[in-house]
Amino acid sequence: MYRTHTCGELRIDHVNTEVTLSGWVQRIRDLGAMSFIDLRDRYGITQLVVDENTDKAIADQLDELGREFVLQVKGLVRERSSKNKNIPTGEIEIALNEIKVLSAAELPPFTIQDDTDGGDDLRMKYRYLDLRRNPVRENLVLRAKMAHAVRSYLNAKDFIETETPVLIKSTPEGARDFVVPSRMNPGEFYALPQSPQTFKQLLMVAGFDRYYQIVKCFRDEDLRADRQPEFTQIDCEMSFVEQKDVLEMFEGLTRHMFKEVLDVEVTEFPWMPYSEAMEKYGSDKPDTRFDMLISDITETVKGKDFVVFDSAEYIGAICAKGCAEYTRKQLDALTNWVKRPQIGAKGLVYVKCNADGTFKSSVDKFYSEEDLKLWAEQTGAEAGDLILVMSGDRKHMLDALGELRLEMANQLGLRDKNVFKPLWVVDFPLLEWDEDSQRFYAMHHPFTAPKPEDISLLDTDPGKVRANAYDLVINGVEIGGGSVRIFNADLQAKMFDKLGFTPEEAEAQFGFLMNAFKFGAPPHAGIAFGFDRLVSMFAGEDTIRDVIAFPKNNSGRDVMIDSPAPIANAQLDELNLKLDLKEKK
Amino acid sequence: MYRTHTCGELRIDHVNTEVTLSGWVQRIRDLGAMSFIDLRDRYGITQLVVDENTDKAIADQLDELGREFVLQVKGLVRERSSKNKNIPTGEIEIALNEIKVLSAAELPPFTIQDDTDGGDDLRMKYRYLDLRRNPVRENLVLRAKMAHAVRSYLNAKDFIETETPVLIKSTPEGARDFVVPSRMNPGEFYALPQSPQTFKQLLMVAGFDRYYQIVKCFRDEDLRADRQPEFTQIDCEMSFVEQKDVLEMFEGLTRHMFKEVLDVEVTEFPWMPYSEAMEKYGSDKPDTRFDMLISDITETVKGKDFVVFDSAEYIGAICAKGCAEYTRKQLDALTNWVKRPQIGAKGLVYVKCNADGTFKSSVDKFYSEEDLKLWAEQTGAEAGDLILVMSGDRKHMLDALGELRLEMANQLGLRDKNVFKPLWVVDFPLLEWDEDSQRFYAMHHPFTAPKPEDISLLDTDPGKVRANAYDLVINGVEIGGGSVRIFNADLQAKMFDKLGFTPEEAEAQFGFLMNAFKFGAPPHAGIAFGFDRLVSMFAGEDTIRDVIAFPKNNSGRDVMIDSPAPIANAQLDELNLKLDLKEKK
Repeated sequence: MYRTHTCGELRIDHVNTEVTLSGWVQRIRDLGAMSFIDLRDRYGITQLVVDENTDKAIADQLDELGREFVLQVKGLVRERSSKNKNIPTGEIEIALNEIKVLSAAELPPFTIQDDTDGGDDLRMKYRYLDLRRNPVRENLVLRAKMAHAVRSYLNAKDFIETETPVLIKSTPEGARDFVVPSRMNPGEFYALPQSPQTFKQLLMVAGFDRYYQIVKCFRDEDLRADRQPEFTQIDCEMSFVEQKDVLEMFEGLTRHMFKEVLDVEVTEFPWMPYSEAMEKYGSDKPDTRFDMLISDITETVKGKDFVVFDSAEYIGAICAKGCAEYTRKQLDALTNWVKRPQIGAKGLVYVKCNADGTFKSSVDKFYSEEDLKLWAEQTGAEAGDLILVMSGDRKHMLDALGELRLEMANQLGLRDKNVFKPLWVVDFPLLEWDEDSQRFYAMHHPFTAPKPEDISLLDTDPGKVRANAYDLVINGVEIGGGSVRIFNADLQAKMFDKLGFTPEEAEAQFGFLMNAFKFGAPPHAGIAFGFDRLVSMFAGEDTIRDVIAFPKNNSGRDVMIDSPAPIANAQLDELNLKLDLKEKK
Repeated sequence: MYRTHTCGELRIDHVNTEVTLSGWVQRIRDLGAMSFIDLRDRYGITQLVVDENTDKAIADQLDELGREFVLQVKGLVRERSSKNKNIPTGEIEIALNEIKVLSAAELPPFTIQDDTDGGDDLRMKYRYLDLRRNPVRENLVLRAKMAHAVRSYLNAKDFIETETPVLIKSTPEGARDFVVPSRMNPGEFYALPQSPQTFKQLLMVAGFDRYYQIVKCFRDEDLRADRQPEFTQIDCEMSFVEQKDVLEMFEGLTRHMFKEVLDVEVTEFPWMPYSEAMEKYGSDKPDTRFDMLISDITETVKGKDFVVFDSAEYIGAICAKGCAEYTRKQLDALTNWVKRPQIGAKGLVYVKCNADGTFKSSVDKFYSEEDLKLWAEQTGAEAGDLILVMSGDRKHMLDALGELRLEMANQLGLRDKNVFKPLWVVDFPLLEWDEDSQRFYAMHHPFTAPKPEDISLLDTDPGKVRANAYDLVINGVEIGGGSVRIFNADLQAKMFDKLGFTPEEAEAQFGFLMNAFKFGAPPHAGIAFGFDRLVSMFAGEDTIRDVIAFPKNNSGRDVMIDSPAPIANAQLDELNLKLDLKEKK
């Protein structure tokens, strides 16, 4: 038996018990007459003591030990003379009788402590050491706890956890698929699922009524900081429901998770139409922890011979509370910030609402105090505030103002990680026009139902059709999204037609689904939560990599196992494939 | 709102309630003056009535309806005059006020009933209809319930559920990998995991202490009836444990599942050495629901001038209780059965132990009554029993006798699906010699630890080294397997050497693991259960396909979605691949 107790288990009640512990050396302190070893495992740290009463042979062993050695030790629990109130085992220590080295350890490439000296690259290469650090392991424990909370809630609500296949079929719609060559079917490929969308809909056709799964999904995208080629979804679908039923159910799930895992009560889940989110927050995932709403001041500011505004489609403003004292330097920095390619604004107009009731703006030449007073009224600015104004193409400026709003909130400390403000964004457009390919794309996906009252617009003005689609947004992060689905073969066929599929293409790719709808499909709707993002929000982490045991880097590489990697020619041959590498330009 | 209640919910207490139900038409019975519709959903069936008091317009609607139409109906709950005690809703019926057709249905290609008229191919093509059938859906519900029971138990035991990556690295050892070309890393491939083996070991190195995951694994094998290219494992690993600790923990899990899910108590989990299983049952997965053990009668039967036996390495026998009356025809059938290529025996010798104490055998020419009496004593045969004997190469004959034993048990009805006999098979050989490639293979996998007392044999007689490896076998089915792992870099390197890896190959493929062992690895051990098989055993099904929502056929095809399928040339081009199809011969 390697241990009688864990390193987090012993208390004052155990004094005088003979125990066996196993764990890692966190550190060794040699105080001359006495030496202490902190022995660590997942459950805690226990102090081991070697003093003048310890067998000399054991004391000599200490010289061979180092950080991260794995030891099995035996000894007697005794009360500490100097107690440590900061750790649960702080009242006791172990007087050693025996030390056995189970594994020696080379010096780790970075320190195994809460604040490590290891950079990102080193931590990823030695991820198994990085995972020994408390904050990283605690993130993974949190993740497990959250998965458990999800399942408890959904099991209690009669959802059937059902596994859908990982080896499915590639479809050209949406993001790029990872594909898997089939040896047994030469020239053919499976694809890895971007989501179990069609399968969960088929489960509804099958009468499963309520389905869920915590499931890996895959997207071969060029990766950004917060994307991984494989990611995890909480995937759900319900039958005989309307949008309201889904939103209530998953508000319940979200509330349950906050309560169970963080002991936080989140009560309100307001509904906000997509159009309002775009107009007031410049984003379809508004951060509602703070106001600073965008005001459309186009009509107010035009006609004063300021050609920049007069020629603009749209002029919008936000009011930064208490920022009237911003210096020239700060304002220049903000101007440069909005001019960066990521934002792409031409410039930034400001109005300082001075404490004495006067105004000072960067456009004083064109606008009188009276004019600026109107701006202040419209943006809700008061003495001491700063109004920031941008002009140009409406869509682009809303986006830019949305970004500026977040940046100002960061500067003002308005984005508290311990405050959680969820909301539902609803009434998304069904279709999005793409200028490049001159066609409509499904904003959500091709299975989303148009609002019944908008169906007639499909033929006359498809861009105006709204969908019964919804996103759960918390603190400016899209946590989940879903929609009421089409459950009628004819409407589904029409949708594919609007998306530019020929009937043959639609049949080849989604014939099984349209066919299924012909045998009695129930009305159904669903949602998927990005589990990695939800965990990173609960953990207070900025990137999902911090809540994934073995993440990949931005090139899709696992630097620990050094994957992907070349495969043997014999393997390629069996798969009826040849490499066709392009020369690098 | 689509429904106020489900179709399985209404009871006598609901009489006089106005309700709305939604579901599928199971059947319509037109009795002239009255008509009945059975409305079905996942939760049950409710009887709807149209009679002389029903609005004429509704009665007329019935003509448009058919099986599997999806309806929303409104009506008043009333007590049935003729109650059906077989279903929970059998005391009530709904007097209809309104019928709304939510979806019409074409005639299904097979009947949606417990006993369907659909063949396997049709059922798989229309799996979404097959899943509507109670027995199929109930299997999937059972599966979800079992997953839940697994998680409850392991969560309570402090196991951390941790997701390991699906996109990993291909290794030539073991079965064939599915590979995934990487677009971002031209010429390189990910592989799909055959198991999360190395990752769970790294989690132990990381100090996670107890890990589990219910996880999809992948093997590109030529498929047999009970294999799928993707399958699900309950995958576990523990630190600071010996074999005994693992076996106790997972006996506990197994017992918990039987109790929670089937309300069956399984108490005894005997340990049987691999050598005993092979000798007495002719199998490393013995079915211990019945005895009929194999007896080695080699020494007893030799030297009587029967050249077949005298020239054989091994002669073994089983005793089939009460089969002395087997006819010539039955015995011929058995002989033909063992001569089939799957068994490959040369013939079958029988001895009938007649009721009067005499013997009748197919080798009476060579053996006296006295001789045969010895055989009977050695095989435990009594009057009325039949002794079946095979001779030849030892390994082959044990295998053949093991198969014959199962066949006789089938004929005698000794394999009751409602009786569960688990056992641990232990002390497997570490290595298996392969004649074709003239090298040793790891019987379990290359990470399995040799028994400490056998380590010295690694250099002198590798084939004799026993492993701390174990299989959980229930009713002749291998449900799970695992081992104590190597946790020392040098021993792991030696193991790879014995398996014919050059140091460079070992480093390239498993360097990350051996490297990890250098930074303080704990002793650890683990196990994986085949979840599909366990579910099919609990469900009493013969194939795992019956407990998988969307299985693939024996060519690895999903005939419902028609996958795998060709992909576009542009896709291949992006992946730097070209098809290289061989001409069919």
